[in-house]
Amino acid sequence: MGETEGRGQLVAAVDLGGTKILTALVSSRGKVLVKRHHPTMAAEGPPAVVRRILSGINQLLSSRRAASGVSSLSIAAAGAIDMERGVVTKSPSLPGWVDIPLRSIVAEAFQLNTIIVNDANAAALGENYFGAGRGARNLIYITVSTGIGGGIIINGELYLGASGGAGELGHMTIDINGPRCNCGNTGCLEVLASGTAIAKETRRRLGQGEKSSLSDIVGGRVEDVTAEKVALAAQGGDALATAVVARAATYLGAGMVNLVNIFNPEVIVVGGGVAKMGDLLLNPVRQVVQERAFPQLAQTVRILPAQLGDDAGIIGAAVYAFQKTGAMR
Amino acid sequence: MGETEGRGQLVAAVDLGGTKILTALVSSRGKVLVKRHHPTMAAEGPPAVVRRILSGINQLLSSRRAASGVSSLSIAAAGAIDMERGVVTKSPSLPGWVDIPLRSIVAEAFQLNTIIVNDANAAALGENYFGAGRGARNLIYITVSTGIGGGIIINGELYLGASGGAGELGHMTIDINGPRCNCGNTGCLEVLASGTAIAKETRRRLGQGEKSSLSDIVGGRVEDVTAEKVALAAQGGDALATAVVARAATYLGAGMVNLVNIFNPEVIVVGGGVAKMGDLLLNPVRQVVQERAFPQLAQTVRILPAQLGDDAGIIGAAVYAFQKTGAMR
Repeated sequence: MGETEGRGQLVAAVDLGGTKILTALVSSRGKVLVKRHHPTMAAEGPPAVVRRILSGINQLLSSRRAASGVSSLSIAAAGAIDMERGVVTKSPSLPGWVDIPLRSIVAEAFQLNTIIVNDANAAALGENYFGAGRGARNLIYITVSTGIGGGIIINGELYLGASGGAGELGHMTIDINGPRCNCGNTGCLEVLASGTAIAKETRRRLGQGEKSSLSDIVGGRVEDVTAEKVALAAQGGDALATAVVARAATYLGAGMVNLVNIFNPEVIVVGGGVAKMGDLLLNPVRQVVQERAFPQLAQTVRILPAQLGDDAGIIGAAVYAFQKTGAMR
Repeated sequence: MGETEGRGQLVAAVDLGGTKILTALVSSRGKVLVKRHHPTMAAEGPPAVVRRILSGINQLLSSRRAASGVSSLSIAAAGAIDMERGVVTKSPSLPGWVDIPLRSIVAEAFQLNTIIVNDANAAALGENYFGAGRGARNLIYITVSTGIGGGIIINGELYLGASGGAGELGHMTIDINGPRCNCGNTGCLEVLASGTAIAKETRRRLGQGEKSSLSDIVGGRVEDVTAEKVALAAQGGDALATAVVARAATYLGAGMVNLVNIFNPEVIVVGGGVAKMGDLLLNPVRQVVQERAFPQLAQTVRILPAQLGDDAGIIGAAVYAFQKTGAMR
């Protein structure tokens, strides 16, 4: 890559999430040049959301910076993607998104090479190239927020599996006798350690009459408890919140032990809203890995917080596009 | 590859197991040309076992077939291997094998290019090139016998991880509240579904006075119950044996669900002594995968019994050597 960003060295990237759509121009050096937020308003259904995506891309391509050359469009989407057909097959965060051929819709609208990739997969690539796991040959990215997702990097490339569905790290059974998960399985990591699980467990214990500063924070409305509020209370030393976070960390640690024993990765990068707790969550996770994983493998792995924050999806989507077009290896 | 096996087209392969050492000449087309069994007599300790390995290789190299040219030596060993240094770092089946530099010992003795690889990893390669998973780009091999091990094939190559320790598929936590595993973790697949676990659970239930044809088979000596005998009794319709096999299959199925959701593999090949039960074990395993894994991924994967039997290790070790020397891709 030269010192200046030459013609065709930009990707117009989109991160389609359940609450917001992020659009940006991204350089092959991972620089985010123009960035805009749009509300998803997912409840309005696929056609309205698609219109907002097209309008967002249009704004990007009309920007002054785009004049230096946009080589392709790349979309990170919160959902299961059929990579071959470029279709969002389903999405827990986007109601009505069943078999939506997003790639061809966007490609036809702008007559540009268009790529679509799962958002957690994209974030894995972003963190591997420009974030916490720079330069690692083998990296696991796990995102802990409402749900738990992931991405797998092997030999510096995104591992997609036989049909593009690899990396569902939230859907490992950790406790076969545990609660039923949305996916139909029981005791998945997601149903035990996600933000949803943290909020639910806190509400359950508050409902049983346990004392906590959270009762004041939500003004007695137990249904207003969120994982974010639990994290804040835990940071403030609240006993109930601390216990709930410790429980989630134990499960998350057990999930990481599985990943360490299976992949022997150099790095596990932890992203997503719940991971914003930082060492409050990651230190007990690291301890579980040291105690339970194969010693040689536990010594090898570094467990790091994500560095790219909300930009992981757009940067990763751009990396994927640059790789596909041969502008990046 | 030409029609005839030319000079340098043979690998002298060794499979070092806890009970026997297998030695063979293997062609680049996976043909086993000369094969010999030697008892390991592992209790005698590393120096005696190493002497038997050297003697076995010597026999191979002295055979008439070896005259056409042996390009390298390749050893599949039951234990953790430091791939970089060619060292067996430890082995549950080989007492005293701690940091034994097997590669350099063998290479110096015969002055031939020598390779060493974990036996389950080798078997994965063998099954991928000449067995049940021929031609699959992404394949998971899992071996269920005394313990549970595995190997991961990604893009037709063995995935080793950051330090050569990837593929410990028996050491995923499936039941975090389950029994303690030899590895120190709790509720690992191995402690729930291995041959050892099957025998132990059967003994426990017989000890509680449950009726079974197994009591007659072992002449009342509960300690003589083995997984093999449980399998025979289950095949004969014994209720207790059937229940124990079903329980192991449920756990094994849950482990496979994890692998399917993580890897989205084309094929999972199941080898090892316990897998010799065939569909009696694999049909309930397949059913658990269909019920619990992501539907798109469950539809993609084929779960198949291994085809190479005891030859998987020597054939796989040879494949690995041929790949390393560029004679096979």
